[in-house]
Amino acid sequence: MPDYEMFELGDLALQSGATLRNAKLAYKTYGTLNADKSNVIVYPTWYSGQHYDNEWLIGEGMALDPQKYFIIIPNMLGNGLSSSPSNTPQPYNKARFPNVTFYDNVRAQHQLVTEKFGIEKIALVVGWSMGAGQTYQWAVSYPDMVERILPFCGSAKTSLHNIVFLEGVKAALQADVAWKGGWYDEPPTTGLRAVGRVYAGWGLSQAYYREKVYLQQGYSSLEDFLVEFWEGFFLKKDANNLLTMLWTWQNGNIGNTPGFDGDFEKALAAIKAKAIVMPAEMDLYFPPEDNEYEVKLMPNAEFCAIKSVWGHFAGGGVNPVDTQFIDETLKALLAS
Amino acid sequence: MPDYEMFELGDLALQSGATLRNAKLAYKTYGTLNADKSNVIVYPTWYSGQHYDNEWLIGEGMALDPQKYFIIIPNMLGNGLSSSPSNTPQPYNKARFPNVTFYDNVRAQHQLVTEKFGIEKIALVVGWSMGAGQTYQWAVSYPDMVERILPFCGSAKTSLHNIVFLEGVKAALQADVAWKGGWYDEPPTTGLRAVGRVYAGWGLSQAYYREKVYLQQGYSSLEDFLVEFWEGFFLKKDANNLLTMLWTWQNGNIGNTPGFDGDFEKALAAIKAKAIVMPAEMDLYFPPEDNEYEVKLMPNAEFCAIKSVWGHFAGGGVNPVDTQFIDETLKALLAS
Repeated sequence: MPDYEMFELGDLALQSGATLRNAKLAYKTYGTLNADKSNVIVYPTWYSGQHYDNEWLIGEGMALDPQKYFIIIPNMLGNGLSSSPSNTPQPYNKARFPNVTFYDNVRAQHQLVTEKFGIEKIALVVGWSMGAGQTYQWAVSYPDMVERILPFCGSAKTSLHNIVFLEGVKAALQADVAWKGGWYDEPPTTGLRAVGRVYAGWGLSQAYYREKVYLQQGYSSLEDFLVEFWEGFFLKKDANNLLTMLWTWQNGNIGNTPGFDGDFEKALAAIKAKAIVMPAEMDLYFPPEDNEYEVKLMPNAEFCAIKSVWGHFAGGGVNPVDTQFIDETLKALLAS
Repeated sequence: MPDYEMFELGDLALQSGATLRNAKLAYKTYGTLNADKSNVIVYPTWYSGQHYDNEWLIGEGMALDPQKYFIIIPNMLGNGLSSSPSNTPQPYNKARFPNVTFYDNVRAQHQLVTEKFGIEKIALVVGWSMGAGQTYQWAVSYPDMVERILPFCGSAKTSLHNIVFLEGVKAALQADVAWKGGWYDEPPTTGLRAVGRVYAGWGLSQAYYREKVYLQQGYSSLEDFLVEFWEGFFLKKDANNLLTMLWTWQNGNIGNTPGFDGDFEKALAAIKAKAIVMPAEMDLYFPPEDNEYEVKLMPNAEFCAIKSVWGHFAGGGVNPVDTQFIDETLKALLAS
C-alpha cells in the first residue's frame, strides 16, 4: 500500500511544447482542511526527494502542525512518484521524457489544490532547495492566492555558478557508457556513484568537513561517508529522473513565467506574498548573496540566514539546531 | 628543440616504497646564478602545469626579475615532462606509476639544486596551488636552506573538503570506460571532458560567474567557456598523469615529512623561513581559514589575502590586478 495519493492531471501541456498525456501528480496530505479552507500549507519537494523526505519539518507543536494546518506535499515531476522518465509509458518514457519547468510543476500543483480540494487561498508555501524554486514560482504564478512564502536554501533564478556545478554532476553521470544516452535497462551505477562523489563537496561546507561532522553523524570515516551516504543516496535514484530534475533546476527562473517575457526583476517585483527568504550562510551553490539581491526587489520580503556549518544541508533536516531555527522562523511568519 | 633541460635523478626511492629507476626532472632556469650563489629562487609547478605555465610571474622589473635572480622552475613529477605515467618505460608505466608525495618531489628538486648547481641557500621558494604545497615542503625539508617562502592559493596539508572535491574529479574521469583502469591506448576523452565540467565550478568563484567575467576574457558564452577553456584544458592532459598528481595533492601534508611522524602542527612550527601565506579570498578549495590556522603556528609568517572574484584562479596569472598584487607582495618579501 502506497502512503500517498495520486491525482490525475489529464493531458499536461508543458512550456517546452510537449504534452504529458495522463500525467500524474503524487501527493500526500497531513492534517484536516478546515471549513473556510484557510489553513493550507503547500510544501513542494527537492532534487530527487519524495514526500516522506519532507516530513522532518512537520509535527505536533511545530510550525507545520497537522493539528492546525492542512499540509499538502506535492511530489515534483521527475521525482519517480509523479510523472517521470522512470514511470511514463512510451513514447514519452526514459530519455524521451520532456523538459519540465518550475512553472509546469506549479501549474500541475495548482490543479491539484483547486480541482481536488477547492482551495482558493494558501496560507504558506515553503520549500528547500528546488522546493524553494517552486515556492517562488507559486508566488509569481498565483500572486493573489499565496499569502506567505518561505523559500530556504534556494533561489528564484538559478545562478550561473549553480548551473556550472550541475554541469559537473551531469557530465559525471553521462560519462558512464552504461547510461546509453538514457536508454539503459540496467542502472548506470558507475555514473551514479560518480555523481555522489561530485555532489559530496558541494552539499556541505568546507567547515563541515574541517570539523568532521560526519563522524558525529555516525559515519566511521570520510570514505564511509562518501560510500554509505553519497554513493548510497544516488544509487537509489533513476538516472533519467535525475537528469529531468537537473534540467528543471538549471532552467529555474521566475522571469520565464508567461507574461514576464524573461524579466527576472519584474517577476520578483510582482510577488505579493509576505516572504522570508532564508539561505544558509555556507551554502556553496545557493550562496546568500543571490538571495540578498532578490529580497531588495521583492516588495514584502525579509532576509534571514541560517548560521550553520552544514552548508546546503542546513536545510535538509539532518541537524536539530538548524531545524529549530527554520521552525521558529516559520512560526513567526505564520503568526504574522 | 625542447625549451627545458633534463636532470638525471638516478634511482629515486619514494616514500611509498617504490623506486623510479633513471628518474628524470625537467626544469628550466631564468637569469644567471651569481658568484656567491645568493640569488636563487625556486618556483615549482601546479596541478598539470608545466614550467612555461609559470612564466607570467617572471619578467624584467617584476619581483622575479631574471636580471637579478636565478630562477629555477622544476616540473612536478607526473606532469608529463618530469618522470610521469605517460613517459616512464615499463614496468612502472601508465597505471603502475607509483604514488609520489610532495616530500618526494622536493627531495628530487633538492638534488637538482645542490648536485647540478651547488646551491646552498635559496632566497625564495614560491608557488601556486600544488606549487604552494611544494613551497611549504621545501621549508620543512630544508629549513636551514630556505630563507623565504610565499605559498599562494595552497596549503601545507590538504583539507578534507579539498580531498572530497578531488574525489569528484577522479570519479568523473574514472567513470569513462575508455579509461580502462589506466591501461588505455586512446585517451578517455569523455572522462577528461567531464573532469573539465566538474572542475569549472570549483576553479572560479560564485562571484566570477555572477559577473560573467568569462565574457571579458573573450569567451562568447558560458557554454563556450566550458567547452573551449575547461574541456579543452583537460583534453590536452594525460589521464594517468592527472591521477598521479591528484594522489600527490590529496595526500599533501608536511607532517608526513620523515622526523615529524605525521604531526602537522609540529612541522608548521619547524618552518624557519620568513613566510607570507597568501590565499585568495573566494578560493573554494583552498579557503583562507585553513591558511589562517597555519600562520598562527608558523614562527615567522604573515597572512595576506588576495581580494578578488577570481577564486582559485586569482593565482593563475590570468588577470593583471591579482598578478600585480602578488608581484608587489613578492617584492616586499624579497626586500626584507
